[in-house]
Amino acid sequence: MNQFLDDKEKLFVIKIGGNVIDDPEKLEAFLKEFAAIEEKKILVHGGGKIATSIGNQLNIQSKYVDGRRITDNETIDLVTMVYGGLLNKKMVAKLQSLHCNAIGVTGADASLLPAKKREVKEIDYGWVGDIETEKIHPAVWKLFLQNGLTPVAAPLTHDNEGHILNTNADTIASVISTSLSNLFNVSLVFCFEKNGVLLDVNDDDSAIPKLTFDQYLSLKKSNKLFAGILPKIDNAFDAINKGVNEVIIGNSNQLSSLITGTGGTKISLQ
Amino acid sequence: MNQFLDDKEKLFVIKIGGNVIDDPEKLEAFLKEFAAIEEKKILVHGGGKIATSIGNQLNIQSKYVDGRRITDNETIDLVTMVYGGLLNKKMVAKLQSLHCNAIGVTGADASLLPAKKREVKEIDYGWVGDIETEKIHPAVWKLFLQNGLTPVAAPLTHDNEGHILNTNADTIASVISTSLSNLFNVSLVFCFEKNGVLLDVNDDDSAIPKLTFDQYLSLKKSNKLFAGILPKIDNAFDAINKGVNEVIIGNSNQLSSLITGTGGTKISLQ
Repeated sequence: MNQFLDDKEKLFVIKIGGNVIDDPEKLEAFLKEFAAIEEKKILVHGGGKIATSIGNQLNIQSKYVDGRRITDNETIDLVTMVYGGLLNKKMVAKLQSLHCNAIGVTGADASLLPAKKREVKEIDYGWVGDIETEKIHPAVWKLFLQNGLTPVAAPLTHDNEGHILNTNADTIASVISTSLSNLFNVSLVFCFEKNGVLLDVNDDDSAIPKLTFDQYLSLKKSNKLFAGILPKIDNAFDAINKGVNEVIIGNSNQLSSLITGTGGTKISLQ
Repeated sequence: MNQFLDDKEKLFVIKIGGNVIDDPEKLEAFLKEFAAIEEKKILVHGGGKIATSIGNQLNIQSKYVDGRRITDNETIDLVTMVYGGLLNKKMVAKLQSLHCNAIGVTGADASLLPAKKREVKEIDYGWVGDIETEKIHPAVWKLFLQNGLTPVAAPLTHDNEGHILNTNADTIASVISTSLSNLFNVSLVFCFEKNGVLLDVNDDDSAIPKLTFDQYLSLKKSNKLFAGILPKIDNAFDAINKGVNEVIIGNSNQLSSLITGTGGTKISLQ
């Protein structure tokens, strides 16, 4: 644990995905709760179905190799438009109307998220970026936050050679959180469609309020957790090991309770 | 003239339109020259034909009433995607590769350009915004510039009620220039397909190097200027009357000579 923890200002890094983005009513409700958070905050959003539907209209077919999605020339233009333009700017405009001074960014803007095109091994993923964490300059993120701006990040990075790259929003949220953990007391919040880490995947009331690493190992050993949640928990502990104070996993329609610690699953070392 | 002019740092506000944006080679050459400008700078870009072509593929037809283009619900989403996402972010990524620390913005981001949906009189223009100049806070623009960031502005504003609005890029460049003229010694540069204000519209070598207000009145009186250029010159003098130091009109393929004063037409009061 960081001995200076109490000296650092609180920062929430909050990630939302398709289940909120694709539903205008849910999105509006979420953004209202997000705007109301008084602490410093960053929103990271994923893609959603609209890119696929606009892609279909433009005759851009989703391409897969061995079950992995490929980002070809047409697809990177599509997601640059939809994630970086349509989704990002509409959220920013909405947040502005809710008195949240949002600023929409991709990883290319101010080079906030420098990345490297994923190396071609068995599969050529196309324009997919792996963030070069060591090249991130926390100074610009801090500049925004200290000046009352709330960054809203689209799931796009850049390769410093003139190309936008497609990057997973969960990864972006984690990398921002770890990169800023020296400057802020970071809570990383993953919003999804469930109420947290569930002991019974079919029972939304079975969310565990708190999960330590020892509890996790023991629950995993006894097969009490459903498979889909395991990578999320592994990523959470990884972020915590890299300096993030806590990770909260929970339902996007309960943001205020996730923030105040009365909802979702709080993941921490002890 | 402002007596403190020499105390203020130089700022170039440079506007490009479709003739550059629609031509990848021209755009690349332009961005190289833009990135090389050592002084503080802001790029404002217009739309270009790609929005129309993507709109056609999406079955969004350009709508006109009495010859005026209307921005309906579908069209504002289209231009938000294309101007705010595709064009803006690709330029930003390119500029980053040229060691220019660009940050792409719309008027919604950090509420840089608050606007009002144009009032419905004879025509309902739809989601078109008229900038509320008095509500612009130069502080955020200055924050970016003083921290080494180069804003790249898409022709979009917002109404503070959650909506993105379509706004003319020339107007945006003028308003940014006048709003920052108390803080910077602003040169506003309009790039287009001609070499400047031409005495003979068919002769690209006939550009007037300098145009004062008296010369303008006299040339206009003797019908020596072609009609299309008049609104540009009127806007230029309007910007100068509102505090901009000079306006330069010239060819987008000669940016460095426009900046150094060896090309284009320099418009100033005297």
